[in-house]
Amino acid sequence: MPFELNARIAAGGFDFGTLGKCRILLKDNAIYPWFIIVPEVDENITELHQLDAADYTSVMFTIRQISGFIETHFQAEKINVAAIGNIVRQLHIHIVARNETDPAWPGVVWSHDAKKPYTKESAIEIHTAYQRSF
Amino acid sequence: MPFELNARIAAGGFDFGTLGKCRILLKDNAIYPWFIIVPEVDENITELHQLDAADYTSVMFTIRQISGFIETHFQAEKINVAAIGNIVRQLHIHIVARNETDPAWPGVVWSHDAKKPYTKESAIEIHTAYQRSF
Repeated sequence: MPFELNARIAAGGFDFGTLGKCRILLKDNAIYPWFIIVPEVDENITELHQLDAADYTSVMFTIRQISGFIETHFQAEKINVAAIGNIVRQLHIHIVARNETDPAWPGVVWSHDAKKPYTKESAIEIHTAYQRSF
Repeated sequence: MPFELNARIAAGGFDFGTLGKCRILLKDNAIYPWFIIVPEVDENITELHQLDAADYTSVMFTIRQISGFIETHFQAEKINVAAIGNIVRQLHIHIVARNETDPAWPGVVWSHDAKKPYTKESAIEIHTAYQRSF
């Protein structure tokens, strides 16, 4: 079955296209730089360890690349990386830049509903930096 | 500098020894099967992507092995995998078996303080199953 991005994930962010085997999205939340990595794999695969060895290695490499981009491009005190999926089951990985000044600190972003859409200018600025990096 | 397990992590669970390059702990919380994976690396490394390529690959493989063990040994509706570290900076990865009946569902465990120590029998049972698997 061809890969189809989950509608809820798609609606929540900007689609930055494919990197390696993954669709990359920037969540439309200017409170935290927050990327969503969606491996373009069979929808029956809902856990990281269910990826075959080659896909697992590839997805992990993409996570490493995006984390490096976040470190370089944003001022982050800490990077949080997580595969949760309790609600949206399509396999996806969160990579979030955290700072002591953000409203959820030191808690996790998944239990906090602070949200502020990006301005068009900010979204374009991040997209441009992303495109220069990959 | 030799690796030293963070005191807070050490105090919170049972040390199952080393697998690959990681120390493996079972958190002493019978509410959720919850493993903590601590790469035995230099303490200056606080983010996954700061691991060199060989260590990164090795740590990711260990995460995959522990996730597989959790899937086989526990009834899990979902497995949550995360590197957070906002409070304890020693690099560590959480792997948690989640179920619709657990008190934090469908939220995340890091914002929920439900806690129940294992009975000695349960802890030994899990340790025995772990030792048989690795």
